[in-house]
Amino acid sequence: MKKIIKDGTVVTSTDVYTADVLIEDEKIQAIGQNISDIYAEVIDASGYYVMPGGIDPHTHMDMPFGGTVTADDFETGSIAAACGGTTTIIDFCLTGKGKSLKSALEKWHAKSAGKAVIDYGFHLQIAEANEEVFMEMPQIIEEEGVTSFKIFMAYKDVLQADDETLFQTLVTAREHGGLVMVHAENGDVINYLTEKALKEGNTEPIYHALTRPPELEGEATGRAARLTALADSQLYVVHVTCKEAVEQIAEARRRGYRVFGETCPQYLVLDQTYLERPDFEGAKYVWSPPLRERSNQEVLWNALKSGDLQAIGSDHCSFNFRGQKELGKNDFSKIPNGGPFVEDRFSVLFSEGVKKGRISIHDFVNIISTQAAKLFGLFPRKGTIAPGSDADIVIFDPNVERIISVETHHMNVDYSALEGLKIIGEPITVLSRGNYVVKDKEFVGKPGKGKFLKCNKFNHDLYKETGQLEGLLKG
Amino acid sequence: MKKIIKDGTVVTSTDVYTADVLIEDEKIQAIGQNISDIYAEVIDASGYYVMPGGIDPHTHMDMPFGGTVTADDFETGSIAAACGGTTTIIDFCLTGKGKSLKSALEKWHAKSAGKAVIDYGFHLQIAEANEEVFMEMPQIIEEEGVTSFKIFMAYKDVLQADDETLFQTLVTAREHGGLVMVHAENGDVINYLTEKALKEGNTEPIYHALTRPPELEGEATGRAARLTALADSQLYVVHVTCKEAVEQIAEARRRGYRVFGETCPQYLVLDQTYLERPDFEGAKYVWSPPLRERSNQEVLWNALKSGDLQAIGSDHCSFNFRGQKELGKNDFSKIPNGGPFVEDRFSVLFSEGVKKGRISIHDFVNIISTQAAKLFGLFPRKGTIAPGSDADIVIFDPNVERIISVETHHMNVDYSALEGLKIIGEPITVLSRGNYVVKDKEFVGKPGKGKFLKCNKFNHDLYKETGQLEGLLKG
Amino acid sequence: MKKIIKDGTVVTSTDVYTADVLIEDEKIQAIGQNISDIYAEVIDASGYYVMPGGIDPHTHMDMPFGGTVTADDFETGSIAAACGGTTTIIDFCLTGKGKSLKSALEKWHAKSAGKAVIDYGFHLQIAEANEEVFMEMPQIIEEEGVTSFKIFMAYKDVLQADDETLFQTLVTAREHGGLVMVHAENGDVINYLTEKALKEGNTEPIYHALTRPPELEGEATGRAARLTALADSQLYVVHVTCKEAVEQIAEARRRGYRVFGETCPQYLVLDQTYLERPDFEGAKYVWSPPLRERSNQEVLWNALKSGDLQAIGSDHCSFNFRGQKELGKNDFSKIPNGGPFVEDRFSVLFSEGVKKGRISIHDFVNIISTQAAKLFGLFPRKGTIAPGSDADIVIFDPNVERIISVETHHMNVDYSALEGLKIIGEPITVLSRGNYVVKDKEFVGKPGKGKFLKCNKFNHDLYKETGQLEGLLKG
Amino acid sequence: MKKIIKDGTVVTSTDVYTADVLIEDEKIQAIGQNISDIYAEVIDASGYYVMPGGIDPHTHMDMPFGGTVTADDFETGSIAAACGGTTTIIDFCLTGKGKSLKSALEKWHAKSAGKAVIDYGFHLQIAEANEEVFMEMPQIIEEEGVTSFKIFMAYKDVLQADDETLFQTLVTAREHGGLVMVHAENGDVINYLTEKALKEGNTEPIYHALTRPPELEGEATGRAARLTALADSQLYVVHVTCKEAVEQIAEARRRGYRVFGETCPQYLVLDQTYLERPDFEGAKYVWSPPLRERSNQEVLWNALKSGDLQAIGSDHCSFNFRGQKELGKNDFSKIPNGGPFVEDRFSVLFSEGVKKGRISIHDFVNIISTQAAKLFGLFPRKGTIAPGSDADIVIFDPNVERIISVETHHMNVDYSALEGLKIIGEPITVLSRGNYVVKDKEFVGKPGKGKFLKCNKFNHDLYKETGQLEGLLKG
Repeated sequence: MKKIIKDGTVVTSTDVYTADVLIEDEKIQAIGQNISDIYAEVIDASGYYVMPGGIDPHTHMDMPFGGTVTADDFETGSIAAACGGTTTIIDFCLTGKGKSLKSALEKWHAKSAGKAVIDYGFHLQIAEANEEVFMEMPQIIEEEGVTSFKIFMAYKDVLQADDETLFQTLVTAREHGGLVMVHAENGDVINYLTEKALKEGNTEPIYHALTRPPELEGEATGRAARLTALADSQLYVVHVTCKEAVEQIAEARRRGYRVFGETCPQYLVLDQTYLERPDFEGAKYVWSPPLRERSNQEVLWNALKSGDLQAIGSDHCSFNFRGQKELGKNDFSKIPNGGPFVEDRFSVLFSEGVKKGRISIHDFVNIISTQAAKLFGLFPRKGTIAPGSDADIVIFDPNVERIISVETHHMNVDYSALEGLKIIGEPITVLSRGNYVVKDKEFVGKPGKGKFLKCNKFNHDLYKETGQLEGLLKG
Repeated sequence: MKKIIKDGTVVTSTDVYTADVLIEDEKIQAIGQNISDIYAEVIDASGYYVMPGGIDPHTHMDMPFGGTVTADDFETGSIAAACGGTTTIIDFCLTGKGKSLKSALEKWHAKSAGKAVIDYGFHLQIAEANEEVFMEMPQIIEEEGVTSFKIFMAYKDVLQADDETLFQTLVTAREHGGLVMVHAENGDVINYLTEKALKEGNTEPIYHALTRPPELEGEATGRAARLTALADSQLYVVHVTCKEAVEQIAEARRRGYRVFGETCPQYLVLDQTYLERPDFEGAKYVWSPPLRERSNQEVLWNALKSGDLQAIGSDHCSFNFRGQKELGKNDFSKIPNGGPFVEDRFSVLFSEGVKKGRISIHDFVNIISTQAAKLFGLFPRKGTIAPGSDADIVIFDPNVERIISVETHHMNVDYSALEGLKIIGEPITVLSRGNYVVKDKEFVGKPGKGKFLKCNKFNHDLYKETGQLEGLLKG
Repeated sequence: MKKIIKDGTVVTSTDVYTADVLIEDEKIQAIGQNISDIYAEVIDASGYYVMPGGIDPHTHMDMPFGGTVTADDFETGSIAAACGGTTTIIDFCLTGKGKSLKSALEKWHAKSAGKAVIDYGFHLQIAEANEEVFMEMPQIIEEEGVTSFKIFMAYKDVLQADDETLFQTLVTAREHGGLVMVHAENGDVINYLTEKALKEGNTEPIYHALTRPPELEGEATGRAARLTALADSQLYVVHVTCKEAVEQIAEARRRGYRVFGETCPQYLVLDQTYLERPDFEGAKYVWSPPLRERSNQEVLWNALKSGDLQAIGSDHCSFNFRGQKELGKNDFSKIPNGGPFVEDRFSVLFSEGVKKGRISIHDFVNIISTQAAKLFGLFPRKGTIAPGSDADIVIFDPNVERIISVETHHMNVDYSALEGLKIIGEPITVLSRGNYVVKDKEFVGKPGKGKFLKCNKFNHDLYKETGQLEGLLKG
Repeated sequence: MKKIIKDGTVVTSTDVYTADVLIEDEKIQAIGQNISDIYAEVIDASGYYVMPGGIDPHTHMDMPFGGTVTADDFETGSIAAACGGTTTIIDFCLTGKGKSLKSALEKWHAKSAGKAVIDYGFHLQIAEANEEVFMEMPQIIEEEGVTSFKIFMAYKDVLQADDETLFQTLVTAREHGGLVMVHAENGDVINYLTEKALKEGNTEPIYHALTRPPELEGEATGRAARLTALADSQLYVVHVTCKEAVEQIAEARRRGYRVFGETCPQYLVLDQTYLERPDFEGAKYVWSPPLRERSNQEVLWNALKSGDLQAIGSDHCSFNFRGQKELGKNDFSKIPNGGPFVEDRFSVLFSEGVKKGRISIHDFVNIISTQAAKLFGLFPRKGTIAPGSDADIVIFDPNVERIISVETHHMNVDYSALEGLKIIGEPITVLSRGNYVVKDKEFVGKPGKGKFLKCNKFNHDLYKETGQLEGLLKG
């Protein structure tokens, strides 16, 4: 029942040291030099990094979209996540108008239960501003362990909520300890530009990008930030892609607002030209916000380094090229939006970030795991290597080279958006609460072993001398 | 020879957890739950924080200034530091024109050897730009373990170096792995304002502040930052006091320059009105840069919180009120510049920062210890609680209340600049490399037990996937 | 038929000199020293300023609002304007959903024809985004001489247009030479805050201000500016009231966007506390955006001085306190929005601006007249004193003191929002196209003498080496 | 004695109209349509612009530098200026350490008297901070009509003044109505970089640019601006060349400081690559600050357009290539610094600015003439076309094309730095106080006809309701 990870280089957001890690009862029991225990299984980690498992705060498993459903469900998706070094995902539970929030959660529990191979939590969409919703929200926070709420500012007439809904969600979150998440694009103007493009006969995938210019992401991001400040609430902007949006977040943070931002691996390594690929291949790279001009990549890396952006989500939302992406063959607006990234998020960030000198190894651990745990109420249970934390651990070879490919990936989708990308670094062994899910690069986990995580309320002060900490002292 | 700190709440820049810490051979051996060792002395830390010992990167012990010498030497000063929770100091070694850097270091080694009760390192002043100095600097870095260099932009005709000296120091530091520190005030204009004030018969202590307005600190800070960027070098601005200077540092950092800043407890809790105290009491609060208007305190706290400032130095430079401060009775410009803060730095930051909700407990550990270790080449030997690090540990009661007073402090000076300040929190036990220096609030250390620390070169990338880390992996 | 204004001090946006002005055939014929003409009537202006007549680009005459109609129509309103030194007004023509733009204009022509005593032009509201509207807009610009279009971002479910409408208006204006004007407040959030306030029983006038916080004006202003930049179009933000909005405009201008801003005298001299006046008197100060905290006044003056704001409109929209404002006695949201300012705009700006040293006399002429003429396609016909321009001239005594009062004003409304304000400076004589409308402080004009002005298209380059200028050269 | 300029298009900073201009007794008497006077000479200006003569606030005539003297003296230099459309120059009077300011002015009066063909004023260098200088400065302002003072922050050990001198000059200027001008480059660091370059054998002209990087101009500009703010004084930064410096000026202005900036035609059309021309031709383009990378040109144009920069000086300082520039054949630091631009300033700005759509015709008049008159105490005597102003007028053909060349220029120097530049627009006739200096493109003036101009004190409020204006009213 016990395990010792021996001689690895333990890395956290702050520390780096060579030590052994003792695991017992699903938790980290001790960290030290020359730990021995005759009852423990020993895992040799010499030459490897020992890091907290990745936390992916942005996935869409088994999600309906535009008349189809994502290619990955909680089983295939969580297997891919685990193989990539991620031990926790937080998935978006969609709601519909006129239905209770509770019923939406029940549907999502049904999708995930018995399938997930790693632990998971939920964010919950708020689709409309009515009295029932804002009556139910506090109860969801208190009883269901779901404390983060998503608003779409785009997808007019489908998912888009108006500013009144956004504001009321911010106010309610403030009062009850929730964190509001936004998809920040101005859906109104996108609607105009899309109709105009189609009217002019511009139907190819590249028009997906051209009708969603970065100015509209910047505008919506700034709007959400200002409403957050007015509501004295907290905001997490998902999938930030461009200079225009980063500037708004940075500005908000400088003014002391509680505004946080996430970007995704795809925006760091791909760019808008991918949508121009011939033979409708561009459709493989259609998601929202769209890929941007290459110059934005440096802006995003710098924002991760400076702390203006805090986290990395995969926005995993996979659709097969054949049969699914092809729905938009003659109309880019009908291409299902999304791409497969849950498996590669961890390694791409390590390889492109740490190995290329853009971020430090501590920055890496922080953005791939620790920050998400702190923001979404999972710390210190998840997100670090410390006595008492869940033994969600990645043993990582920082030097091995490999090529990303659909041939080798575990995601249930017929292409890789990163096909051919050379990567340095690979998870060797992955533990979820001390149990192997990956061993010597082989998936060994079991569907259903992953547990639903009740998230704590948003901690305004991120571990100021308050609540939780006092609790620890008393304990 | 072994010790176990039991049941404390361990706090680092990232983590917080309840665990036991095992110490052996001056180092942290293991951290874990329910560690036991029959040969180990057990220290009960239940209800207490267990934190890395403070690192004070800015002290002046046994330093000559204006015809007198500071009241504290390395013995009394380091005892006070230890009693206050600080286990490492980095002191400024002054040089003179026309003398070798090596000879200056020798003088400082003579002052400290056999006296210090905790470990210590040195920064080295660069007083003039001549060929000998810039020939010797690389050797100092390589052989002497002194890697940080101080330039004064103020004290015209005394300590002040011109921009050519500053720039050449930056270039040399860049080439050889040094970090340049500046006292940033425009000494030229201060000289004009001081002469003008004295000519007009304005001799009281308050004119010390009025002749050194914050604009001049802002100007010099910006100038140093821009020259640093041009030299592609690294800069640490000591004792930042005001909005004008913080803005320059923040701007430089946003542009990606390697510019860092330190403030001091006195600027966070005192203000310019103290210099107006009657009966020449204002002289107790004379140091440079001077205390500022109260509104700057919030700016400094925010900069600590946002990371625009990284560290806290005490700028400990004590002079007795009687006999020393009185030298400037009839001429504010003759008051020895400096105040006694090495003992209170740690507690004031905890009480005013953490307890008043301005910074988190993790921010506190970061700025009181971890950042200084990282910036000055002492990490991970110092600055954290992790297996393999020196067992420099403070066991801290976060709830006890007390009053700062000259009656109870350990500094060898006849007043406290913080007399009467109510403080929450106090070090109970302090270990230096595993040895007691403070036990149950009593000093139990010994002069000469503190060792000189050779600092590593400035790490450009602060623990990117480079040098030191690779070393750890190979080891 | 000829007139000579003798010995006045002529002031324009650039110049100041003592000279005589010869008027013939409604136009300025010559300016010079010692002009004489035996056929001309001589007006002695010695000791007075001779300035271009004011242009008020923001009035609402004879306008329905909330079930009532403004107290001033084109006759009483234009008489008051003239008496105050204003010789041109540009009024907002409201449209309704489902009706043609042309029919709206016809209604407005009917309201004004035969009534106005000075020249006037129209702006036209765009209420909805439908094909008919955007087909008709170009024709309005080309044929009707109406080239500026107003969008309301507030008044949800009444006047408010969505972002798609705003964007399409911007695009159409760009293509055909229009200028888009916005009322910039986030109506969605105001709706929420208003309903909340009323639900909580907060019905007094002050809640009008409290439910429309400045953040919402800043947000909407920034949104409009960003959409303008994306459309590569031009924007004029009406009635800017606060720091939050000024910052957005200044930022947009620094980025080179064609974004302009107007403020109003009421925001420069009154503040939010007026809405707290007892006995429902606060209702006299209810308009949108609301009066702000006093600190915003300095921001607005500075923006006028620096050129971040270009013009001053009165937003004249008068309702009697008795019978009209009282409609909101039990519900602040039912108080008709608006106040009476067309008469005092010119003098308040002179007295509070020039006389108090906040703006120069040239700044004054520029913002009270020249800039509006340039922005709305009336220059050089209006807005300056130069040979060939319309003889719209104010002879102004810069030293006389007087008190603003409902007792003496010409507006058809039962209170003055500036009652008791001491003013220095007063128009002595006002000429509209060379004809007296005010003579020795007495109104002597005639309803119907004012002509409708066809505005030129927006000049992208404001008198670059293009169009109009070339025309002059050829002529 | 009278002249009428008929049918031209008169252009000022604000106005544009077709009219006749009547001149009598060296002044503009009247402007109007169809002016006739049987005693007046008629000049046909149809098809031409009639503009205020240019004011060049930055020339160096007959100036010693590095052991030689500029190629142009007040005669040849002012002839060239006049032929180029400039009717006023303000030249820099150099002083030396240990000599009275008065004696320096006397020397400059001796250089210019009897030679200048157009009116001229002086700026006066302040070389050192001693009591005599600051005692004499107020007297110079009051009695000599010299109200602007120049400080060099570069040229270490030669012209460079320290910050104490700069600050004291700012304080004295503030008290007595002067305007301080700075050459803003950090001479200390330039000294280091120059010595380093020469030591490494880098002697070619391009090293002039490489040893004076733009960061050093930005730094010095920011420093001067901050000291100006502290002194509550006024500053005019000469020859601004780059983004780094423009940012500092723009920032200072946004904070409300009285900081103004000038650029020069050479920085708008040439770039650093010119210094790399073979055969030592690069030396023709050596002046300080040096030419910059091309991207700075757009920054400078935008700053002129936005008003962050106010004026254009030529920094005319001509040295022959043969015999003079060649002094630095083997050492770039010995190349006399300067270039010939007084003749082309006006036309280059018109052609590259107005004709290429970068600035409006009003912007052009403002920066080429009006602003300099206002800043240096010459308005409204100079700088506009208005009754009562000096008849300094340029009749300008805006459409003729020509090529700049040493073959045709009037400057007394053996090369043109703009050789081959195609220009649109040319002065046809130039009047200085109503007298022809250029007639049908031929120089017809006479040495000695130009008069020394006593400048008024700096007007803090640039024609607020104060001093001068009241004077006009009373007259």
